Amino acid sequence: MHILITGAAGMIGRKLIARLIGAGVLNNKPIEKLTLLDVNAPQKPAAFAGRVETVGGDIADPAIARVAIAGRPDVIFHLAAIVSGEAELDFEKGMHVNFDGSRALFEAVRAADDDYRPRVVFTSSIAVFGAPFPEAIPDDFALTPLTSYGAQKVMVEQMLADYTRRGFLDGIGIRLPNIAVRPGRPNKAASGFFSSIIREPLNGEEAVLPVEDTVRGWHASPRAAVSFLIHAAGLDAKEIGPRVNLTMPGVCCTVAEQIAALRRAAGDKVAARIRRESDPLIMRIVAGWPSRFDARRALALGFKAEASFDEIVRVHIDDELSGRFTA
Amino acid sequence: MHILITGAAGMIGRKLIARLIGAGVLNNKPIEKLTLLDVNAPQKPAAFAGRVETVGGDIADPAIARVAIAGRPDVIFHLAAIVSGEAELDFEKGMHVNFDGSRALFEAVRAADDDYRPRVVFTSSIAVFGAPFPEAIPDDFALTPLTSYGAQKVMVEQMLADYTRRGFLDGIGIRLPNIAVRPGRPNKAASGFFSSIIREPLNGEEAVLPVEDTVRGWHASPRAAVSFLIHAAGLDAKEIGPRVNLTMPGVCCTVAEQIAALRRAAGDKVAARIRRESDPLIMRIVAGWPSRFDARRALALGFKAEASFDEIVRVHIDDELSGRFTA
Repeated sequence: MHILITGAAGMIGRKLIARLIGAGVLNNKPIEKLTLLDVNAPQKPAAFAGRVETVGGDIADPAIARVAIAGRPDVIFHLAAIVSGEAELDFEKGMHVNFDGSRALFEAVRAADDDYRPRVVFTSSIAVFGAPFPEAIPDDFALTPLTSYGAQKVMVEQMLADYTRRGFLDGIGIRLPNIAVRPGRPNKAASGFFSSIIREPLNGEEAVLPVEDTVRGWHASPRAAVSFLIHAAGLDAKEIGPRVNLTMPGVCCTVAEQIAALRRAAGDKVAARIRRESDPLIMRIVAGWPSRFDARRALALGFKAEASFDEIVRVHIDDELSGRFTA
Repeated sequence: MHILITGAAGMIGRKLIARLIGAGVLNNKPIEKLTLLDVNAPQKPAAFAGRVETVGGDIADPAIARVAIAGRPDVIFHLAAIVSGEAELDFEKGMHVNFDGSRALFEAVRAADDDYRPRVVFTSSIAVFGAPFPEAIPDDFALTPLTSYGAQKVMVEQMLADYTRRGFLDGIGIRLPNIAVRPGRPNKAASGFFSSIIREPLNGEEAVLPVEDTVRGWHASPRAAVSFLIHAAGLDAKEIGPRVNLTMPGVCCTVAEQIAALRRAAGDKVAARIRRESDPLIMRIVAGWPSRFDARRALALGFKAEASFDEIVRVHIDDELSGRFTA
């Protein structure tokens, strides 16, 4: 089993690599080789006995895409992307990386004129949807994104489905929920508060809540996201069917419910480290986001998210804080 | 009023030009100039007093796209496309013309760094939808095309919406029904029989029906299609809202109902010129096509199709046969 990961240096990429190395197998086959691609060549992971090739470069450059698939990886996890906020600020960069990068990768696979037909797991996003929404968004709801990031993800989903239908590759797109609790420092993503109101208080720091606590989100942990990717790699194409892009399950809860879960896990003193300071811009952006799905197809195909936000908080404390927090 | 038409030499393009010249105005403004683009420079239409510029070339060539918009047309009708059958047979050509061509046009508009923000009317298609379907397809149904043509149309719809949202242009996408009765000779499109079973018998010729007469279609006449385009050019962006891609109204009827309409218009002898000869490939392709829509938004915005297939037959006899047919 040879695996290519694009965007290997990102948060999800690094966690996926660690999980794959820990398991030693993917789809019940021993992992012999990893090819890791990112803008700058990723570090070779320690603790992996197999071969590792690292590639640094622009995935939208056809030559780089060709190099990445030269060893004919059996499974490609295509994670490389410019995030939502940056794709909105820099339209050209978003189109270049999110769309042209994906197209270059898919084209490199198509151009391999042997019978090469790898499983391609593409990380899409619930940003493919845009308000107004029904109470729960069904699997067959329209794709009307309200960000350039979302539009680019839809465009790649369409290529993925068409390339799959035509037999150029064997694709599956997974629309990730909001990933919480995202580790690391606060960033400028409009969705950042969903994570920071849990992460900073557990770290003894103050967090700012820029929206009403009635705001809802659709969440899964980084650990669940990695599980989605690995599960997607092993699904039978016949079972997936022609609609290869799937909304992932998640936990629907309000900010108030997130804070209650934090309080149950860590106590009143930790939960008191959240300061409310409303931000009209973030409030407006968040209003266009989807927050509740009826993700039937993904559940039927065996994808599993956490059952509650309490579980998401526990995953964060276990995976990122080694079970300890600042009470 | 300066109007650019891409795909100006095509069937809809020529009918649109004739209608615009006949009216002399668009959006209540006198038409002063037409810029007509196609692969080969279109003929200058006679009977037009204003200026005409013709451009021949590949719209996916940025230089051609720049030339096409150099005169800053107020309204752009973007019709240029490779049809469904050809896009399926020649994947690269379909992507090049349908997707890259649209992107080059939109990019040329975006690159005009003044306040240029033309109304762009894009002809999409109901091929953006793919089975399985509910009884009537709502405006907020998922986009899961089953052809490369359909996938390319979705990708352009997404760009159109995002470029509009960002203020790069002022777009509206209209998803055309099956256009019947298409004038001219039979072609190899899988949908050709919807038109040929009306057109050939009226012309004294035999037509072949390759599917069961219970097969349903969603139809509008070429005349209605031109009316959709002109109506779309005049709609207020605020009225359209952020979901700029709209499914057009049409007539839902079975092949049996089409034939009954032909019989009512032209008699038994004409209707007897249809020979049934089933074609498993066409039957399979047609099974994936949408045939009934609840096109509420378009109707609310004032788009009008024919009320019955009888009306579509009459439009064909009037517009293409000058009221006469071979009894």
